[in-house]
Amino acid sequence: MKPKSAVVFGGGGFIGGHVLQALHAAGAVPIAMDVVAPRSDMPVPVEWFTGSIADTNLVASVADGRDSAIFLANASLPGSSQSNMYNEVKGHVAATLRVAEICKTVGVKRFIFASSGGTVYGYDSPEGGGLHEDSATRPLHGYGASKLSIEHFLRLIGRTGPMQTLSLRLSNPYGVGQRATRAQGVIAAAMQHALSGTTMEVWGDGSVERDFIYVTDIAQAFVAATTYNGPATEINVGAGRPTSINEVIAAVRAASGLDLKVEYHPSRSIDVKRNVLDITRAKAELGWQPQVDLATGMQQTAQWWLRTQ
Amino acid sequence: MKPKSAVVFGGGGFIGGHVLQALHAAGAVPIAMDVVAPRSDMPVPVEWFTGSIADTNLVASVADGRDSAIFLANASLPGSSQSNMYNEVKGHVAATLRVAEICKTVGVKRFIFASSGGTVYGYDSPEGGGLHEDSATRPLHGYGASKLSIEHFLRLIGRTGPMQTLSLRLSNPYGVGQRATRAQGVIAAAMQHALSGTTMEVWGDGSVERDFIYVTDIAQAFVAATTYNGPATEINVGAGRPTSINEVIAAVRAASGLDLKVEYHPSRSIDVKRNVLDITRAKAELGWQPQVDLATGMQQTAQWWLRTQ
Repeated sequence: MKPKSAVVFGGGGFIGGHVLQALHAAGAVPIAMDVVAPRSDMPVPVEWFTGSIADTNLVASVADGRDSAIFLANASLPGSSQSNMYNEVKGHVAATLRVAEICKTVGVKRFIFASSGGTVYGYDSPEGGGLHEDSATRPLHGYGASKLSIEHFLRLIGRTGPMQTLSLRLSNPYGVGQRATRAQGVIAAAMQHALSGTTMEVWGDGSVERDFIYVTDIAQAFVAATTYNGPATEINVGAGRPTSINEVIAAVRAASGLDLKVEYHPSRSIDVKRNVLDITRAKAELGWQPQVDLATGMQQTAQWWLRTQ
Repeated sequence: MKPKSAVVFGGGGFIGGHVLQALHAAGAVPIAMDVVAPRSDMPVPVEWFTGSIADTNLVASVADGRDSAIFLANASLPGSSQSNMYNEVKGHVAATLRVAEICKTVGVKRFIFASSGGTVYGYDSPEGGGLHEDSATRPLHGYGASKLSIEHFLRLIGRTGPMQTLSLRLSNPYGVGQRATRAQGVIAAAMQHALSGTTMEVWGDGSVERDFIYVTDIAQAFVAATTYNGPATEINVGAGRPTSINEVIAAVRAASGLDLKVEYHPSRSIDVKRNVLDITRAKAELGWQPQVDLATGMQQTAQWWLRTQ
């Protein structure tokens, strides 16, 4: 089935830009809403609305008549949401649910939420395997607790119909367009250090493992979700394989041809050692699987960094 | 260890009254805060503060210097929170977390939250067993999603110390003082029907199973929690055994000596068939286990109904 129209809340961000392009490539009409002005580097036509998701009238008019809504807007970032849970909930969680409820009211058919497979589980993935969507969830940070709380309420919003809701639990995204400025990704941070000649600080011995997923693969998962009619309400979207921080460092060096200075510090051990997602459900339900391996993704990412620095 | 002082938010309610009495019996100083005026039927001395948890100054002054805080206040009830998730989160979830954060600020050592083992899981307990705290959680209603969201953020508030947080996941409470007016319990509803001679409507064939816990057992679990220093952050508090709706009906008839007219309707199947809690953790961590079996609890409850109707 061909996707129709999809409004991307947070379309001005790193992932948003790729989702808008992937929607266009799939034959859908991409619409963006973001607090930032239309991006000048967008290679495809995008209907763009500048404004805050707190502007409920704007949200309603932007969403009205759209087939799908994709929610990538974030009121918080990993690490920023530890100090005041009350504000986190009142801001991030409630604001997201309000957008979903408005979308339902104006007849949107599907609401697809960017959740976080890297933070909602909160413990190590099993040796040699990945975390499954039906595993227990014990987030270690406010960011993950917010994502998870939103998931629970979205499932209920979808349960009473007619708007379907779906949470894609993304692993660690990386790729072209991701900047190191917002502390969002270790790969972007490493790339930044390599280019600027500064030293990257690693806590622990670099054996910590994460699941890195290339951003165009994420975009394809969202496109697949816009025509999904199945029963799943949470789906992991990741590479389904582990990559250690030391492997990332080696890959950045290889892809960029640059020296990357690294300094190891004693582990702060505030986080899990191994986060890998089981992506069986994504394959079965969305017919999706990652297409871009780490070497290829790093190559493209490094070329972009070298070109645009 | 002997409990010290404990402030009970929502001390004016059904469970609150029993918790206050149990605290007093254990040698602690019981303090109540509630929107309702001091209860006239309280057989023990209680320091009482009348006001809303939205009054942050009052919350701070009431909690200041207390050893424990027990949170039984509810901005929502089962069934009431399905229509507007935004308000549910902004009201119930955020308001609860704000109280916890205030308690932490004024030096409370333990924050004990009344969560809901009957709603946070959202699926049938395994045949012949109970739902364990590390099981997956997929609440079917806003009430359960709120409880669960609060749990997640409380765990994080406790994680950074020094205030410990603990969520007691209560199964279906019943007992002396529970009225049928607030749609809170099937036992109270059945008792009300038996006394008034009205017909109780049962959806399905009455084989649906729940875990009923007598209210004084719940109160003891809260008292045990006020001296708990272990690592658990969520603990099931229930009978650990199933009772069908038909068994409840038979028990109400036996305990009250009254006829209870029942009418069976086709199942609406909006809820789980079997909810039983695994209480292994409560035994191990709190040294707690239920003392009052269903026949005894029903006897006491029926006597109270007959005496006070």
